[in-house]
Amino acid sequence: MKLWQKKGTTLHKEIEQYTVGNDPFLDQKLVKVDAIASIAHASMLNKINILTKQELKALKKELCNIIKLDKKNKFKITLKDEDVHTKIENHLTKKLGKLGKKIHTGRSRNDQVIVDTRLYSKEKLLGIEEQAIKLCQALAKQSQKNQSTPMPGYTHMQKAMPSSVGLWLGSFAESLLDYLELLDAAYKLNNQNPLGSAAGYGVPLNLDRNMTTKLLGFAKTQNNILYVQNSRGKIELAILNALTQIMLDLNKLATDLLLFTMQEFQFFEIPDEFCTGSSIMPHKKNKDVLELIRANYGIMLGYSTQIANIISSLPSGYNRDLQLTKEPLMAGLELANSTLSICTLVISKLEVNKKNLLKACTPELFATGKAFELAKKGIPFREAYKTIKNTNEWHKSDATKNIMQKKYAGATGNLGLPKLEKEIAKKKKIISKKQHQLNSTLNKLLRQ
Amino acid sequence: MKLWQKKGTTLHKEIEQYTVGNDPFLDQKLVKVDAIASIAHASMLNKINILTKQELKALKKELCNIIKLDKKNKFKITLKDEDVHTKIENHLTKKLGKLGKKIHTGRSRNDQVIVDTRLYSKEKLLGIEEQAIKLCQALAKQSQKNQSTPMPGYTHMQKAMPSSVGLWLGSFAESLLDYLELLDAAYKLNNQNPLGSAAGYGVPLNLDRNMTTKLLGFAKTQNNILYVQNSRGKIELAILNALTQIMLDLNKLATDLLLFTMQEFQFFEIPDEFCTGSSIMPHKKNKDVLELIRANYGIMLGYSTQIANIISSLPSGYNRDLQLTKEPLMAGLELANSTLSICTLVISKLEVNKKNLLKACTPELFATGKAFELAKKGIPFREAYKTIKNTNEWHKSDATKNIMQKKYAGATGNLGLPKLEKEIAKKKKIISKKQHQLNSTLNKLLRQ
Amino acid sequence: MKLWQKKGTTLHKEIEQYTVGNDPFLDQKLVKVDAIASIAHASMLNKINILTKQELKALKKELCNIIKLDKKNKFKITLKDEDVHTKIENHLTKKLGKLGKKIHTGRSRNDQVIVDTRLYSKEKLLGIEEQAIKLCQALAKQSQKNQSTPMPGYTHMQKAMPSSVGLWLGSFAESLLDYLELLDAAYKLNNQNPLGSAAGYGVPLNLDRNMTTKLLGFAKTQNNILYVQNSRGKIELAILNALTQIMLDLNKLATDLLLFTMQEFQFFEIPDEFCTGSSIMPHKKNKDVLELIRANYGIMLGYSTQIANIISSLPSGYNRDLQLTKEPLMAGLELANSTLSICTLVISKLEVNKKNLLKACTPELFATGKAFELAKKGIPFREAYKTIKNTNEWHKSDATKNIMQKKYAGATGNLGLPKLEKEIAKKKKIISKKQHQLNSTLNKLLRQ
Amino acid sequence: MKLWQKKGTTLHKEIEQYTVGNDPFLDQKLVKVDAIASIAHASMLNKINILTKQELKALKKELCNIIKLDKKNKFKITLKDEDVHTKIENHLTKKLGKLGKKIHTGRSRNDQVIVDTRLYSKEKLLGIEEQAIKLCQALAKQSQKNQSTPMPGYTHMQKAMPSSVGLWLGSFAESLLDYLELLDAAYKLNNQNPLGSAAGYGVPLNLDRNMTTKLLGFAKTQNNILYVQNSRGKIELAILNALTQIMLDLNKLATDLLLFTMQEFQFFEIPDEFCTGSSIMPHKKNKDVLELIRANYGIMLGYSTQIANIISSLPSGYNRDLQLTKEPLMAGLELANSTLSICTLVISKLEVNKKNLLKACTPELFATGKAFELAKKGIPFREAYKTIKNTNEWHKSDATKNIMQKKYAGATGNLGLPKLEKEIAKKKKIISKKQHQLNSTLNKLLRQ
Repeated sequence: MKLWQKKGTTLHKEIEQYTVGNDPFLDQKLVKVDAIASIAHASMLNKINILTKQELKALKKELCNIIKLDKKNKFKITLKDEDVHTKIENHLTKKLGKLGKKIHTGRSRNDQVIVDTRLYSKEKLLGIEEQAIKLCQALAKQSQKNQSTPMPGYTHMQKAMPSSVGLWLGSFAESLLDYLELLDAAYKLNNQNPLGSAAGYGVPLNLDRNMTTKLLGFAKTQNNILYVQNSRGKIELAILNALTQIMLDLNKLATDLLLFTMQEFQFFEIPDEFCTGSSIMPHKKNKDVLELIRANYGIMLGYSTQIANIISSLPSGYNRDLQLTKEPLMAGLELANSTLSICTLVISKLEVNKKNLLKACTPELFATGKAFELAKKGIPFREAYKTIKNTNEWHKSDATKNIMQKKYAGATGNLGLPKLEKEIAKKKKIISKKQHQLNSTLNKLLRQ
Repeated sequence: MKLWQKKGTTLHKEIEQYTVGNDPFLDQKLVKVDAIASIAHASMLNKINILTKQELKALKKELCNIIKLDKKNKFKITLKDEDVHTKIENHLTKKLGKLGKKIHTGRSRNDQVIVDTRLYSKEKLLGIEEQAIKLCQALAKQSQKNQSTPMPGYTHMQKAMPSSVGLWLGSFAESLLDYLELLDAAYKLNNQNPLGSAAGYGVPLNLDRNMTTKLLGFAKTQNNILYVQNSRGKIELAILNALTQIMLDLNKLATDLLLFTMQEFQFFEIPDEFCTGSSIMPHKKNKDVLELIRANYGIMLGYSTQIANIISSLPSGYNRDLQLTKEPLMAGLELANSTLSICTLVISKLEVNKKNLLKACTPELFATGKAFELAKKGIPFREAYKTIKNTNEWHKSDATKNIMQKKYAGATGNLGLPKLEKEIAKKKKIISKKQHQLNSTLNKLLRQ
Repeated sequence: MKLWQKKGTTLHKEIEQYTVGNDPFLDQKLVKVDAIASIAHASMLNKINILTKQELKALKKELCNIIKLDKKNKFKITLKDEDVHTKIENHLTKKLGKLGKKIHTGRSRNDQVIVDTRLYSKEKLLGIEEQAIKLCQALAKQSQKNQSTPMPGYTHMQKAMPSSVGLWLGSFAESLLDYLELLDAAYKLNNQNPLGSAAGYGVPLNLDRNMTTKLLGFAKTQNNILYVQNSRGKIELAILNALTQIMLDLNKLATDLLLFTMQEFQFFEIPDEFCTGSSIMPHKKNKDVLELIRANYGIMLGYSTQIANIISSLPSGYNRDLQLTKEPLMAGLELANSTLSICTLVISKLEVNKKNLLKACTPELFATGKAFELAKKGIPFREAYKTIKNTNEWHKSDATKNIMQKKYAGATGNLGLPKLEKEIAKKKKIISKKQHQLNSTLNKLLRQ
Repeated sequence: MKLWQKKGTTLHKEIEQYTVGNDPFLDQKLVKVDAIASIAHASMLNKINILTKQELKALKKELCNIIKLDKKNKFKITLKDEDVHTKIENHLTKKLGKLGKKIHTGRSRNDQVIVDTRLYSKEKLLGIEEQAIKLCQALAKQSQKNQSTPMPGYTHMQKAMPSSVGLWLGSFAESLLDYLELLDAAYKLNNQNPLGSAAGYGVPLNLDRNMTTKLLGFAKTQNNILYVQNSRGKIELAILNALTQIMLDLNKLATDLLLFTMQEFQFFEIPDEFCTGSSIMPHKKNKDVLELIRANYGIMLGYSTQIANIISSLPSGYNRDLQLTKEPLMAGLELANSTLSICTLVISKLEVNKKNLLKACTPELFATGKAFELAKKGIPFREAYKTIKNTNEWHKSDATKNIMQKKYAGATGNLGLPKLEKEIAKKKKIISKKQHQLNSTLNKLLRQ
């Protein structure tokens, strides 16, 4: 029975189906965090004398039991349960009688679902950052290993100037590292305790919001209780937008690799066991994995579009529309995680075909260098440029020497990898620390 | 085993997981159409002497058996099967030995999956059109019933001029009917046979493409075999864009209803059994169903964004990226169908509170009428307008009389409902006919 | 002075700036159609006895004069004028006194702006269709000329099977032709007369809507007067979505060309006078034009996103939000037109490097053909496939012979160009006829 | 003449038009920053002995002159100039002869345009933050003033529980403040010096990148020179996504205000001089400004869509597609600024109709409170809830007392405004400091 259902009334079957939607399926992944948040809430209710010590103990025990049942797939949410919150309250009432009916004092499902998605997102975001750091490490390692391997640099999809495998792969490591800052900003927005907002207008009890903030390991209490409700969807959008930026780096990496592994290039190769074949063409060795990395950027963009549209032109306060932000958020977090992990695998096993890369460093790549030689002799650059342009004939130079000679900061001869690796290591440590803190805070809550 | 797999080779587990993705789940819904298309393909192979009559008969029997197994949920596609095409070929080979290995002659999974989604979309689109027509009927009926019920007309969210419930509901019926034309255009694009394209470059056999076109009930053969591959995603986008337009009408209908059922309006009501409650507020009767209809427009828009992005900047020919267009297409078709059906339910049970509507027809609504009265007396309209503007005081008129007096085409006193109903009936007939033709064509193929 | 302004009142400067926005600039392009629609409206007012024959004549003369002034850039709309409708009414009042104040009888700026954008879009859409047909012709011509020129066919960005330049270019012509049907559906939606809707709730006059429908050359009167207002933005979205599909074809064409003109391919070339250079690299010959064609798909998508978002969750009736749909519509029409025209130029001058194309037809392209040879000998296809797969060694065949031998409908040896050209010619004729009808209808209205 | 143009060659007219596009118009706004960046670049060239002290002085003088000319609208970029970079180089060459031809040594237009948009964005972003703070202040002030003014709190667009004007307006202030953190993260990404990247592959000179970083006031040098190019569009997207979040707050504020100023509510009013009228309805007082604030969220979303699409599936290195990211960036910055400014005006002049707000606090709002009264007496909440639910009759309470009694953090009786105001003041100070630093750094560069 639904929490709000009046005895003797029923909800029209088709309406029930349409309104409940995918919630039972999605909420299954929220059982653990919903139980954890309920423990924190109950502890607070005990402190403000709504629950006795005894009652808190009993509730906590059963909530811990729910987490165990869920781990064993024995706590199944169905259409009739409506959502995880109802399922848990009904379970507690079934097990503990009247006591179960007390758990919802001082909260609404509206702040409950927010605390759930925030706790869920926190864990997932740290996992994603961890994966991103692993990819940075793989990129930096390959960049290091191939820093003196020349490759043609392209602009406008035309051969431009000498580049290096080190520069190319290093660029992705630096980009990812930069955009982790954006993810951090989203993480910070998400790291606020919404409990106490109830349906956006509070309750006439003397709630201790800072207590649940502390117990659940949030960095702060999200103050204005209406803002709590209005931030739903917005924080989800901030998360997805940051993930979109990360997917964009992976989209470019895949785009480059798909081009540079074409038969016409053969600059790189990925292992046979990463490739798939064709049902009709016996010779095919396809890089489906790279194509899907590329395409999954569009999937992520669609998730963000869904939220960006759903939450617009909505009046203040909870609206059921917000329920539909849950699926794109959860799917997006999943997708970023798996795509980062797959990319790390690909990069760590990337085969670099030095011979082909060197062969591809054809004369035109060196034309600009010639202009600079003249410029260094005092000829105004634009004149030097025109002189070379009119030559229309260019000669091959030593590509390796060329790239290693560019010694200024960030150039091919000075990639700054030691500094980059230091930054990666530092970031890794911060993430580990955050993960450790989160786990120990929540474990403490469960054990206490 | 995958169709393309070389004995002794394996696909890396994580790569397999990432590349197969949701296909086993999605493809489960394509078993029937894949089997049907395979029967058509086999019939054609028999005609061009690749298969004997006997062989065709055996294949057909087993493919029909697969459809039956699937109906009973006994034909389960798993991760290892990769997709529906592989599952079926492997099943046929298991059951029929060498004969099963012949079925793929002259096709690729690339044209096979297109024929699947086209057949699937055809059926779903006709179902959606049928649902849309039902909604049109419900709207027209309520419009008819309430054609002389006045309601305030709003512009800029401010009271503007007298309107009627009939005009308001009729506007949605006309809109839906108009946008079905757009859906028809997408249907027509989708109604082309892709078989024979193989991987986009054909096969060295003398395929009879028009034969499969006829057997499967397509309106035409999609000619250029590379265009067939390049149209993947594009046709899906055309379908989703048309569905987005329909969702937009439903979004506006829900937006209006959510406003007009607020306590401040109470123009309309929906039955209690359509409403849900709150877990914290005992008095609440929420119209979640309307909020979800409103929000699901954003979900649909996200699906279309996914495809619009995935298929851009892709070179010609099949790319694995296209695989990811399947999920948004299938989800979008499902969503449009259920949302139309829910709307029909809501509209057919809509309660109209005439008393409140009449009470809401306050004096300012009649100010413009006063200006026109002066204009009819020969005062230039702009002067009449200014005269009334300066009065700043308006008197209530008889709202019912007011709306019924506007007699020109499409105005409140002349909604044109008989013509509308005729058009709805005509459209309904066309859809039924198409559905019947499709069913009888496919049944004939299965029976033959 | 604004039409609605009360003497002695002022609009706050910053509010004026923000609300008027780009309208004076955009509306400049609507002067002609606004004047034309005003003539039709005045003619109708004469018929229903609001204007005398004399008055109609005077108004018409001055409205024609406005069109002439505008042609000479002497009818400038400024911030103070607010929009084209105000500018024209004020001009008429200035020139004709009281008579000018009568022109707005029976209409609102709300239906006036719709009639303007519809007339504007009609002309632009026909121009776009004309451009698209020119591109189809250029593609078909090049396809014809190069139908026996082999080129590698790619799937997954890997060499797949032999293709031809004819097949490749022909695929774009067929696609464009198909999507013109979608544009036609949008054109049809747009081809409805909105006049008489006023602000969505009509006027208490006996308007003759079918008369203006006929005078302005619309195919029908858009019936329900509230639907008229609610369709604003929706029809614009239908137009932009159809244009997005066309831009998608051009995006793919540019993507292909950018790939195939890389130094590693050199399959095609475009004339030097189409290429730009680099400010730093003397040797560069860049295909900026192709990159911009590719990127402008994203620009168009953004226009459609703007409208798709603006019109969602809006209640029925005119809302000022709709004003902001004008700019993306007009910009989108402009962009599609110029991009089609540029593509036609590029395709008509495309240089085909047959030698390189032939050289690129390497042995692996022929592996599938070998499997089919075995299949034709009766070996089940899957076995034949595996046999070839295990060989791992492929031999070059005669590519031209290979492609010409695939004789079934739509394959490389049977592109169906005569039929395609017939369809193009037919479509061209239809467009010309529509253009001619539109022009003669409007000219008749101006001359009468 | 274009910088890259070979004597005697011409660019096809239509291609020139299409490729140059809106650049002359947009680049006009970049003259100042391009000149400033050129001074920094020249100073660096002097340090590495490419330019003499004398030459630097002459260049600097003329570049300062260009800034002055531009201020007076006397430095007009035309189609023939192609862009601001060309215009300036050509101007310098015209004025200073050979010396002008030296300015481009060691850079490309590719890093030049990035440095321009970054400097431009920095200034604009600080201006936007300043505007946002002003709006926060206006919101906090009104919140303060109305903290004990009750208003109905809505969920699901139905009356829920007592709220307050203070809570409602305060929620927007807190939200804006939070999302400024996201804007800061984008600002930080943007605050990196791209100079020295050239076309992504550097130059064979010993550039001193840290020198230009310091001269131009960037927080750091963006290291990897290929990453510099690849970050174009990405940083723009980060900026627009952050602005979208801010527009989302304003969209909700406008949505609320449009609802609460309807005749059925009349909770608030905005001054007459902020309202517009109707061309047909004399009584109308429309809140167009609010509707446009609401709709401009969609416009912003479209800008972000444009960039999100353009930069996807692009290979590494500069591609001309990136040029098209400039317009949505610049338009988006402009739009956020003007919309924030307009909102501040509206909020600061908002009229609060206390009488109507109080009257709207009808009995159902107090039903939940009754349930909590029972819960406080020891009845399990779910039972208390059901008891009240079954009553079905609710009594009005003292709304002011009700809201002031909720005393916990963030609730109506404890909005935390002093803390909020402190945070606003702190943020304001930081922004002012940043603005001052930026101005003094750039002024110093110009004066030196």
